[in-house]
Amino acid sequence: MKPASLRTIKSEIRVVGIDDGNSVSVGKDKVSLVGVVFRGGRWLDGVLRTKIKADGSDVTRKIVRMIKNSGHYGQIRVLMLSKIFFGKSNLVDLQYLFKKLEKPVMVCMSKSLNVGRLKKRLESSCEGKDKLKLLKTFGTPLRLEYDKGKHVYVFLCGINEADAKEILNLTVRDSVPEPLRVAKLIASALQKV
Amino acid sequence: MKPASLRTIKSEIRVVGIDDGNSVSVGKDKVSLVGVVFRGGRWLDGVLRTKIKADGSDVTRKIVRMIKNSGHYGQIRVLMLSKIFFGKSNLVDLQYLFKKLEKPVMVCMSKSLNVGRLKKRLESSCEGKDKLKLLKTFGTPLRLEYDKGKHVYVFLCGINEADAKEILNLTVRDSVPEPLRVAKLIASALQKV
Repeated sequence: MKPASLRTIKSEIRVVGIDDGNSVSVGKDKVSLVGVVFRGGRWLDGVLRTKIKADGSDVTRKIVRMIKNSGHYGQIRVLMLSKIFFGKSNLVDLQYLFKKLEKPVMVCMSKSLNVGRLKKRLESSCEGKDKLKLLKTFGTPLRLEYDKGKHVYVFLCGINEADAKEILNLTVRDSVPEPLRVAKLIASALQKV
Repeated sequence: MKPASLRTIKSEIRVVGIDDGNSVSVGKDKVSLVGVVFRGGRWLDGVLRTKIKADGSDVTRKIVRMIKNSGHYGQIRVLMLSKIFFGKSNLVDLQYLFKKLEKPVMVCMSKSLNVGRLKKRLESSCEGKDKLKLLKTFGTPLRLEYDKGKHVYVFLCGINEADAKEILNLTVRDSVPEPLRVAKLIASALQKV
């Protein structure tokens, strides 16, 4: 799918950042996924939450439902994900996400993807073959430089590099985009109790 | 207990805002309580969470444990609560909270307290007599005016009016202190799934 250009990017653009808090407790079947709706990098507008199977393949469907069922759907302009999989091996289908929600998707990672390790993880998981097939469609993440020499590794779907950079410049306050930093803080707190 | 004066109030003072998201689902015994650690009204530093009995009297103990067990305990200077009870009737003992945590407590409410309604609610709850006794120690909330003619109703414990006003001026961005606004957003999202 060709990367589109967002018509205008206002400083208060609504971005939803999605994270799982990174920790999957042993023996837990389900993982909380948190979506945080930000206006630019400054104002937290809303918090969304869903649950996914740690080892399953329902994450894409669950993200679509979480966002469509929220009062923020119409306002959200971009989705930001911290990873391409959540839980242990629940791989996201970026193209499907973009198609169903009609919102561009940016996956923003501080490090490049260790494809070999992820492959091994997917192979031994539920519906491993389908996941490996989906993984092949990703290719290699792009190293994207933005403000003040900072960089991030991204997968982009439905958005071009220039727009992605502008959104990073608007949402990063320290080193991580605020919607992702806060989504991680919340999701981590949920795993603990 | 005499209201103390905070030595200095920096713009980045760490405040933890505590809320339960307001909605108690019918049939739910437990309610999530969320603590949000803010630096001033600008930077979200951490998210804490505990669970309390909707109709019980464990909220004070649970708040103490949630804060003491967090990595933020040493940094936190003030506690901000949205109400004096959480869940259906889990009444907070402010004096005990102040004594155990050695941090001043501010309860910040947009409306004054409907004592009659709360009394009825407590009467029919678990350990109702003890709760009514505790309620008597609260007295009437204070109408506190701060920046630009805004006001809030407060119960203060271990903090004087001038310091409370300064903290409100630092943490309110719209009409509610940010730590309480965000704690409510998160706690509300938790009630839904």
